[in-house]
Amino acid sequence: MTTVSWVEVDEDAGFGIENLPYGVFARPGELPRVGVAIGDRVLDLAAMSAAGLVEDRHYFASGSLNAFMVAGRPAWQANRERVTELLTDASYRAQVEPHLIPVADAELLRPFEVADYVDFYSSEHHATNAGRMFRPQGDPLTPNWKRLPVGYHGRAGTVYPSGTPIIRPSGQRRAPGDQEPSYGPSLRLDFEVEVGFVAGVPSSAGRGVPTSAFRDHVFGFVLVNDWSARDLQAWESQPLGPFLGKSFATSISSWVVPVAALEPARVSPPVQDPAPLPYLRCDDPWGLDLHLEVLINGQVAARPPFASMYWTSPQQLAHATVNGAPLRTGDLFASGTVSGPDREQRGCMLELSWNGQEPLSLPDGTKRTYLEDGDTVTLRAQAPGASGSRITLGEVTGTIHPAQP
Amino acid sequence: MTTVSWVEVDEDAGFGIENLPYGVFARPGELPRVGVAIGDRVLDLAAMSAAGLVEDRHYFASGSLNAFMVAGRPAWQANRERVTELLTDASYRAQVEPHLIPVADAELLRPFEVADYVDFYSSEHHATNAGRMFRPQGDPLTPNWKRLPVGYHGRAGTVYPSGTPIIRPSGQRRAPGDQEPSYGPSLRLDFEVEVGFVAGVPSSAGRGVPTSAFRDHVFGFVLVNDWSARDLQAWESQPLGPFLGKSFATSISSWVVPVAALEPARVSPPVQDPAPLPYLRCDDPWGLDLHLEVLINGQVAARPPFASMYWTSPQQLAHATVNGAPLRTGDLFASGTVSGPDREQRGCMLELSWNGQEPLSLPDGTKRTYLEDGDTVTLRAQAPGASGSRITLGEVTGTIHPAQP
Repeated sequence: MTTVSWVEVDEDAGFGIENLPYGVFARPGELPRVGVAIGDRVLDLAAMSAAGLVEDRHYFASGSLNAFMVAGRPAWQANRERVTELLTDASYRAQVEPHLIPVADAELLRPFEVADYVDFYSSEHHATNAGRMFRPQGDPLTPNWKRLPVGYHGRAGTVYPSGTPIIRPSGQRRAPGDQEPSYGPSLRLDFEVEVGFVAGVPSSAGRGVPTSAFRDHVFGFVLVNDWSARDLQAWESQPLGPFLGKSFATSISSWVVPVAALEPARVSPPVQDPAPLPYLRCDDPWGLDLHLEVLINGQVAARPPFASMYWTSPQQLAHATVNGAPLRTGDLFASGTVSGPDREQRGCMLELSWNGQEPLSLPDGTKRTYLEDGDTVTLRAQAPGASGSRITLGEVTGTIHPAQP
Repeated sequence: MTTVSWVEVDEDAGFGIENLPYGVFARPGELPRVGVAIGDRVLDLAAMSAAGLVEDRHYFASGSLNAFMVAGRPAWQANRERVTELLTDASYRAQVEPHLIPVADAELLRPFEVADYVDFYSSEHHATNAGRMFRPQGDPLTPNWKRLPVGYHGRAGTVYPSGTPIIRPSGQRRAPGDQEPSYGPSLRLDFEVEVGFVAGVPSSAGRGVPTSAFRDHVFGFVLVNDWSARDLQAWESQPLGPFLGKSFATSISSWVVPVAALEPARVSPPVQDPAPLPYLRCDDPWGLDLHLEVLINGQVAARPPFASMYWTSPQQLAHATVNGAPLRTGDLFASGTVSGPDREQRGCMLELSWNGQEPLSLPDGTKRTYLEDGDTVTLRAQAPGASGSRITLGEVTGTIHPAQP
């Protein structure tokens, strides 16, 4: 069945009726509220609810998606079905059209309040490349890597909405060959192309979330740029992992794509050998055929394939909770850098320039080892949607500003 | 000048007029609100404010200290002076006494909402012992250790109030000599004796908090038990640090001791050699002469001296923000395990039993390598207060419950 919206939609842009991602927006002088993207419009769900057109238990007249996210899968499904009905049945057009606002007139805000932020390391190609650079003597993958999705906690307070300026961080780093560390602005500032999912429904302390319960807890997916200062990170990370090399900023996209919209993008992930322990087994295929793209100053720098990720999202969630740590609404889980097997599929400058040794040439001839002040990095993603459509995860963008004195 | 309260106080208990820590409490059927401890009573600040006895801009009729913590140092000082006046000037007794509630009648709740949680690793004795056990080949301290306070982000959503049952976590671990990991309840469950400080006043993105501004941002100190599953931790931690081995639970004490109450406890920290980089220099002595004590089932297991910590709290705060990561109200920073040079001063079972090889004998003759189901761990701390008094950080306690199936 093909469903067509009465809203005019540029199919190539990926904001068709098959997507319907959620975000938080505000117009000048108005309070932030929840909306759904359709074409180049935002459907104002707070106004729709005030007009009695969608059910709302105070979910939508809110500056974050958290109240709606905690409502759970039946509420998410019901609202998605209702919005689809309203935007496809032309008899609703006269009632609904006044609540469609041009995206150009709205400011898109951070879509949800982040509770905890976990970052994984689930691309075999990325982990192998990073291991080769940082531990050239040994096996590039640590012994645990194919046994569990390696991850760590990042800083929730520095998860910023798309468009937030990224101030070059300062800190301690030790130049190659030096004995003494020095202090100053990072000289190896990097992006990381990642995909994240956000929890809506909490779980109980002491009980893990099995892979089969993924859809009952997870509201949707966002694009994540996990900005990284490689020189700070390399110096600080032993023995307790990354800290200031990551904690200055993480950017997320404005639109949260519902899990339901990505069902047609599900594919089999790479074969997992050795077989994971039972708590990590997942009967359903949960690879996602997301085609990612990173642009530096508008020039395509890489096209990482998310379908190549070794560990899937339900496995990441099952692992993160298997020790009894409960989920909270707003918990964000990012995939780790997405890198494919080919050079042009690598998801960060560390790999694209092989830690600065092989500058990357952009299509316009400019070269980069790491990011320079003034550079703008934009991540985009497209995926198969229902009815043969293409849907988008929108974009996440940020411009590097000089370090503050 | 000696100040004496008209409230009867057991001086040995450490809740005298020189302390006046803040907490959140509730009586059955009543809403949680903010109080101050004096003797074995809680002064109900919400009721005091309703009676016009203390100034309140809606700080106190709240289920957390966050609103008061964000108000800043002038408000903290003013309230501390006013409460001291009311509790020492007997002419207020008739007005104030109705708002003193026996602690025994109140439930003490988590005192603040945790924003981000950072855990440091700032005891040289602890880091050296851990390094000897986990990296027996090399230098026990990594090259960065005396250059910066090593730290990482923990899970804010599992910071629990004192008394919360601790469910033994399950997860992956690999037994010594095994090739294959297995899944099951942790066999090496541990406590960590730590001291934490909590930020009240936020800082700006892109600007670090200098060591000299510590008092302008930090509201107070708590005791922290950073529960750890050593077998999960050892298997998962390379290359990105601890994750599930820590994220199941962290317990904090019920009372937050104001920075002002701990001024008399300040001492010179150990000499730092090499001299820290300028952003980590601290002209004022910020070691703290806290005498910590850990009890297992009421038996004293260790007495770690906090004054032996290599890195001080203002240095930790300056480091954590030097990359421009802003502070939020409720950010919790824990010291890392506190261990002194002597065996009976070690702050966790990993060290006390040398990773299970040398069982610890408790005074009653029972032995422990790691924690067993049913064990209750209690941390306590005392410090010099004003006027020759002793003040307490109260206690943080938790009992191990069996893993859930």
